[in-house]
Amino acid sequence: MMRHQLFRSAAHASALSAGRTGLAAPAWQQAVRQYSIAPAASETKLADIDPSQLVIERTTNPKPLKAAKDLIFGRNFTDHMLMIEWQNTTGWQAPRIVPYQNLSLDPATCVFHYAFECFEGMKAYKDKAGNIRLFRPDKNMERFNKSAARIALPNFNGSALIELIAKFTKLESRFIPEERGYSLYLRPTLIGTQKTLGVGPPGSALLFVIASPVGPYYPTGFKAVSLEATDYAVRAWPGGVGDKKLGANYAPCVVPQREAMGRGFQQNLWLFGEQEYVTEVGTMNFFVALRNKETGQKELITAPLDGTILEGVTRDSVLSLARERLVPQGWNVVERKYTMKELDEAANEGRLIEAFGSGTAAIVSPVRHISWKGKLINCGLKDHEESGEIAAKMKEWIEARQYGDDEHEWSYIC
Amino acid sequence: MMRHQLFRSAAHASALSAGRTGLAAPAWQQAVRQYSIAPAASETKLADIDPSQLVIERTTNPKPLKAAKDLIFGRNFTDHMLMIEWQNTTGWQAPRIVPYQNLSLDPATCVFHYAFECFEGMKAYKDKAGNIRLFRPDKNMERFNKSAARIALPNFNGSALIELIAKFTKLESRFIPEERGYSLYLRPTLIGTQKTLGVGPPGSALLFVIASPVGPYYPTGFKAVSLEATDYAVRAWPGGVGDKKLGANYAPCVVPQREAMGRGFQQNLWLFGEQEYVTEVGTMNFFVALRNKETGQKELITAPLDGTILEGVTRDSVLSLARERLVPQGWNVVERKYTMKELDEAANEGRLIEAFGSGTAAIVSPVRHISWKGKLINCGLKDHEESGEIAAKMKEWIEARQYGDDEHEWSYIC
Repeated sequence: MMRHQLFRSAAHASALSAGRTGLAAPAWQQAVRQYSIAPAASETKLADIDPSQLVIERTTNPKPLKAAKDLIFGRNFTDHMLMIEWQNTTGWQAPRIVPYQNLSLDPATCVFHYAFECFEGMKAYKDKAGNIRLFRPDKNMERFNKSAARIALPNFNGSALIELIAKFTKLESRFIPEERGYSLYLRPTLIGTQKTLGVGPPGSALLFVIASPVGPYYPTGFKAVSLEATDYAVRAWPGGVGDKKLGANYAPCVVPQREAMGRGFQQNLWLFGEQEYVTEVGTMNFFVALRNKETGQKELITAPLDGTILEGVTRDSVLSLARERLVPQGWNVVERKYTMKELDEAANEGRLIEAFGSGTAAIVSPVRHISWKGKLINCGLKDHEESGEIAAKMKEWIEARQYGDDEHEWSYIC
Repeated sequence: MMRHQLFRSAAHASALSAGRTGLAAPAWQQAVRQYSIAPAASETKLADIDPSQLVIERTTNPKPLKAAKDLIFGRNFTDHMLMIEWQNTTGWQAPRIVPYQNLSLDPATCVFHYAFECFEGMKAYKDKAGNIRLFRPDKNMERFNKSAARIALPNFNGSALIELIAKFTKLESRFIPEERGYSLYLRPTLIGTQKTLGVGPPGSALLFVIASPVGPYYPTGFKAVSLEATDYAVRAWPGGVGDKKLGANYAPCVVPQREAMGRGFQQNLWLFGEQEYVTEVGTMNFFVALRNKETGQKELITAPLDGTILEGVTRDSVLSLARERLVPQGWNVVERKYTMKELDEAANEGRLIEAFGSGTAAIVSPVRHISWKGKLINCGLKDHEESGEIAAKMKEWIEARQYGDDEHEWSYIC
């Protein structure tokens, strides 16, 4: 009897605090169902993001434009920012576009202590007709919501946020250079703002979007990078959060990255497990092109979405284009686990064709060498080459859709 | 030749940006040494924290004191806060005690995006003579520095920060209730403040300390909790950062915790691997007392510091007191891996004596049941008991040192 009471009362207390309905049966009777995550508490009565409520306060002090050649990634920002507050009692408040400004937060705010923060990275492009275009923003919104849910931050209507981002981007149109390769980097960010030190789901949050004009990643053409395989530190693991775009996944990556740079490599390559599976490079997904050992067929390979890999939008775009355009040319496109040993063997046997990272910043980043266990693996580029054929084609194909030269449903006109 | 040039030039660029001296040999020749972390860049010329430079700006608007019974953990704060800024060019700036106030930060600040944040939890106690005492602050400083280094935030002289915290605590003396069980919870926090979106070591940081008066965790005596074993989510991994007190380790824990509460359990218990090793409970370390299957000897067991376990100060204190006071009574005190299966077996065979969590907030938190694979494991408490003997003794022993009744080197008089 004590046992029943204990659990009923705890469940009840929890139901009250989490805004759930009471459980139908005492929790201990449901124990067989415990190894899954229950549906999130219903929040249907809370307000969703409503673009029609947008309030715009324009700056009275517009910034001078920087020369396109002086743009540095994520260092200079536009005149305004988009802000939307959330409360667990009422939901999403009216969206506001306000002059770019500091956030004023209590030092006890949970974002400073427990990393209640997730973000997206996306870009707005100006096409030849002067339209502003986003690239697959629905994919960003989908991932943003998944990231938020994993750390108990609120979800929202992705289309509504795209509509607001489009308005915000148009307002900042003058900051987007028209030259090919230039764009406006957009950083939607969601932080917990509850100002108490107890560890629990934040009762309030702030979604904001800031924008930074950026130049081409390779202003003078591709420049292949060299990687150091990292096995002393692990980025992500099964049951962890490595597939979500959480702040928590980034700070711990900086020391291994700095170590790799200290030994002369531009990025580190994250391995996993005793098998030394190849997972990601720095903060990008990773692709290799090789000839199959048995069949000789050309294969484009990337690690599968098993929970340890960031669900990259560029990764998805590369796979999709490869299936559309490389498979008819006889390529096999595969998402599967593969090891450093496999890459080493392929390189030794002359079967490694090329390797590249993929991400929003660079689209693709060709790889020359990988340092692993004291060896330097050559990834297939000749000394005078800075990119393989597949990486170069992918950049061309993806940019054509981003800038609207190849009109496609991936491109969203603001 | 190309290869030499590539690496030399990359190493050189890196050496410049990271403030290192040039490497003696091209990096590729050093590749055999790659699987270790090189010594951090020398920062001997940068200023360390200097308590003699402390500037105090007192509030003109002191807060009313809350009744001791109304104190809620981490919700109300004292009149002031301690702040120390750091720049990678000059080091630590003059410490300041200022009125408790909001932080004003650019929305691009790296703490909001990449979780450059770590913290400590410690308490100040008022003894019978009216002295203010800290408990093992050197352990907190040691861990704080380790956490900071893991995410490329600056280190500092721990004794200097203890001296400043002591001054700050004495200034806030009126907020510390004199009754046993009450204390002033101190939250030293270090955040990266660089305001650019590139992922790299922050060039500036802010260390701050805030303080919240807190009441006893068990105002009416112990209250045993029940746990749900979590195997669908994994808190930490070898090679990860689970042994550091990073914000990054906390937000991802909240959903599994909410899930456990939704099923009627107060906390979740983190398991690891196919073997289902028992690691930690919620945000506490975990101890079990059982009789050895072969020898019948009483054993106090906790998971070892293998990189997946937070290096708890209370954990260390429990182990130390157990070795001093339980071993002479015939106990064996062991840090080793142990599994849920082992606990289940011990419970079934009547060998499980008791189990408890350990942490700064509660000191110890007795455990009644663990739900695992549809079973409810009884951890040894009788229905009318809220704590086992060891947990009760540990609380008494540790509190005696915290409040100075048992004068000991662990207690630091401010």
